[in-house]
Amino acid sequence: MTRFHPVTPQVIDDLKNIVGADNISTAQAEIDLHAQDAGFHPAHPAEVVVWGITAQQVADVLKLANTHCIPVTPWGVGTGLEGNSIPLYGGILLSLERMNTIIEVYPDDFQVTVQPGIGHKDLNEKLARYGLFFPPDPGANATIGGMLANNAAGIRTVKYGASKDNVLKMQVALADGRLIHTGSRSIKQAAGYNLVQLFVGSEGTLGVITEATLKLVPVPQFMSAIIASFPTVELAIDTVVAVRGSGIDVAALEFIDVTNTKAMNEAGTDIAPYPTLLMEIHAAHEETLAADMALVRQICEETGAVSFRATANNAERKVLWNARHHAYETLQRNHPGQKIFIMDVAVPISAYPELIAFSRQTIEDYGVIGYMKGHAGDGNIHVELPFGDETTFAKVKQVNSAIVHQAIAMGGTSTGEHGVGIGKAAYMAQEHGEALDVMRDIKHLLDPNGILNPGKVLPE
Amino acid sequence: MTRFHPVTPQVIDDLKNIVGADNISTAQAEIDLHAQDAGFHPAHPAEVVVWGITAQQVADVLKLANTHCIPVTPWGVGTGLEGNSIPLYGGILLSLERMNTIIEVYPDDFQVTVQPGIGHKDLNEKLARYGLFFPPDPGANATIGGMLANNAAGIRTVKYGASKDNVLKMQVALADGRLIHTGSRSIKQAAGYNLVQLFVGSEGTLGVITEATLKLVPVPQFMSAIIASFPTVELAIDTVVAVRGSGIDVAALEFIDVTNTKAMNEAGTDIAPYPTLLMEIHAAHEETLAADMALVRQICEETGAVSFRATANNAERKVLWNARHHAYETLQRNHPGQKIFIMDVAVPISAYPELIAFSRQTIEDYGVIGYMKGHAGDGNIHVELPFGDETTFAKVKQVNSAIVHQAIAMGGTSTGEHGVGIGKAAYMAQEHGEALDVMRDIKHLLDPNGILNPGKVLPE
Repeated sequence: MTRFHPVTPQVIDDLKNIVGADNISTAQAEIDLHAQDAGFHPAHPAEVVVWGITAQQVADVLKLANTHCIPVTPWGVGTGLEGNSIPLYGGILLSLERMNTIIEVYPDDFQVTVQPGIGHKDLNEKLARYGLFFPPDPGANATIGGMLANNAAGIRTVKYGASKDNVLKMQVALADGRLIHTGSRSIKQAAGYNLVQLFVGSEGTLGVITEATLKLVPVPQFMSAIIASFPTVELAIDTVVAVRGSGIDVAALEFIDVTNTKAMNEAGTDIAPYPTLLMEIHAAHEETLAADMALVRQICEETGAVSFRATANNAERKVLWNARHHAYETLQRNHPGQKIFIMDVAVPISAYPELIAFSRQTIEDYGVIGYMKGHAGDGNIHVELPFGDETTFAKVKQVNSAIVHQAIAMGGTSTGEHGVGIGKAAYMAQEHGEALDVMRDIKHLLDPNGILNPGKVLPE
Repeated sequence: MTRFHPVTPQVIDDLKNIVGADNISTAQAEIDLHAQDAGFHPAHPAEVVVWGITAQQVADVLKLANTHCIPVTPWGVGTGLEGNSIPLYGGILLSLERMNTIIEVYPDDFQVTVQPGIGHKDLNEKLARYGLFFPPDPGANATIGGMLANNAAGIRTVKYGASKDNVLKMQVALADGRLIHTGSRSIKQAAGYNLVQLFVGSEGTLGVITEATLKLVPVPQFMSAIIASFPTVELAIDTVVAVRGSGIDVAALEFIDVTNTKAMNEAGTDIAPYPTLLMEIHAAHEETLAADMALVRQICEETGAVSFRATANNAERKVLWNARHHAYETLQRNHPGQKIFIMDVAVPISAYPELIAFSRQTIEDYGVIGYMKGHAGDGNIHVELPFGDETTFAKVKQVNSAIVHQAIAMGGTSTGEHGVGIGKAAYMAQEHGEALDVMRDIKHLLDPNGILNPGKVLPE
């Protein structure tokens, strides 16, 4: 790409003047640390790493970069999986990691205002004494800014919604250096265009989030976990539909394919080798928890579960979710020297069994190894495909492509929660049709020089 | 405004060719029927009323209007309150009322795809046999298209969210005649810019919604209503915070100011003349309902309720909500020959008592009559101000203005659910600051000739 200019010594000096000498680095170690995310996309080096400390500095960095036509890639802690924060065209890697303070907690409003660099786990630790928490949980300790930029979701979305559903107000730095605020601290909002939701999920390609006011929920008084296994995927998904239809507001509703039970068990669970559902229920009273559990048990019996185990024991519950969260790392250990292509699609729940069957068949057809699990409550599925050489990588990419096309054809989406990044840009035309032109027009409107996270979201 | 062109006989012929002779009218009766909404804004006539029957016709009407620079005002059934659908600059009144069919129900996905002209009450009647319903409820039988365009909310938002939270996918006709689709039928979506939420709440100024896929929820098995009165507004709101903090997912949490109890009672309730909360609880089991009710009772006792009445009786519950829904009509009957200026603002819940006190003081200061009620669970308040002459109207407008400024200054919004329309455009600069420029740029991008619902949302 020739449209961008290099980071010159003069630009480095200008950047130092904005953020201070302590918040800029061209050291190889820092460049390397910020060249790749947690996924399978190849690393690419930035020319300089800059840490913003204040919102105004972030805005000033963007303005400078815009003037000189230098790409800027925002960075939280690099836990993304689709290359969302890889500085594909070099330029400035703008880390928000040092903007990690809680600005204000509003306990009576169930809200908190934070800087973008705070990790959601760190935030929730600090909120514990208020009896409140921010529910979206992508597993890793992603930053709030990264979670909002990518609309991260995770296992509790079925009850509490994704990141986009838990933000009220943001401050955003635009490419031209303007610092705007969007939304308000009112839960209900109907005043003009929803710019909050335009920037959420735009992966730093339209602006950089410099502050956010989040919705919080009370820490549930009572929690319970359930593991139930089924003879077939279809019966497992019938159960998902029946549980949701019962009116129980289940907090997690996870599918573990038979291909993934082994990795889960190595991480601490004891799951039979069948299609399995993991559930979590949050309740305000013991009576509700007991009634919900009894109803779920009844549904599972009616749909023909081959095993059913429930626990309100906190330690046992934590082992279960730790195993679920670390299943990916377990897979990595089981495939030493290999990378894992982790893919993310989502479909209407009724299409879930067919998508699982299609995925399994595709994996077989290509003769690769594939593990499947997903957030069944919202139709989200992840297929994990280990690869150790170029031939397998090529096959894995074809498997990925086939499953993505299928998910879109079923009325679903190419990505439920990992975002588009580099990996899914090629599918945007199939998924959005002419609406992609509108997205391009909005990108051009807000970032006419295309400096903001280039190479992401929109196909080039 | 001279930027628009009149609807010429040639344009009428072209419109007839698009929608057919049965779906166009210049009869005075039709012009009058579509000149005003349910609120207090003055009527303004369109030049022609056109009923779209298909999405393509809607797109073709927009393309024609765009070519000739003729304003187009979309219309559902005119139940808006802020002049959102008044054809302020004449031109074409584009009614979606005849596009009122259910396209497909997806029972296992808890989804339905509809045309925009179906009323939400009519939709819910038809969905009853699936045990599902679309929860947003603004009171009147507004159309789904109108509800989405204005992001209507109502009494059940505290549990189920506003219209914006209950839509997955839309088809939208753009000013230049393109017909795009936004979103997908997947609950989780992270693929590109959130155009669904850009069009939702844009009040027909960016495009016209021609189809929508909505999220549905199971009809609750058990419901209960509670009326509790308190010595002060502060104690009532302490109760709201405590109930929300308890983890009970209350389905409605309404505030009735002492000024409004009389009108409520005339409509069928028996409420003591104190600041009062109406609540509704939805549960999947009888045990949960009983436990929730007991906990709410305990909270109300602790916060010093002067009265507490609960009922799981359906008929009694309906009387209560009918009275709440018809309180506005009751006020109208109590002020014959007068109009009622109904205002809508929302603030963070902690600011609610102060806003109530401020509003009451302002009403007193101006020597007008004012009634207050609101959706306290989301900090939304409505002040109803009857007026019968120009002098009172002028005072009422000043009261409105003072309360809106105060709500914004408290971190809230000029409108929680009625939308901007004509009435709130003047406050957009205060509320959004420089973000208003971004909204203007987006408007210009999608509607360069400004034909879509001119005079609404953005100040002129």
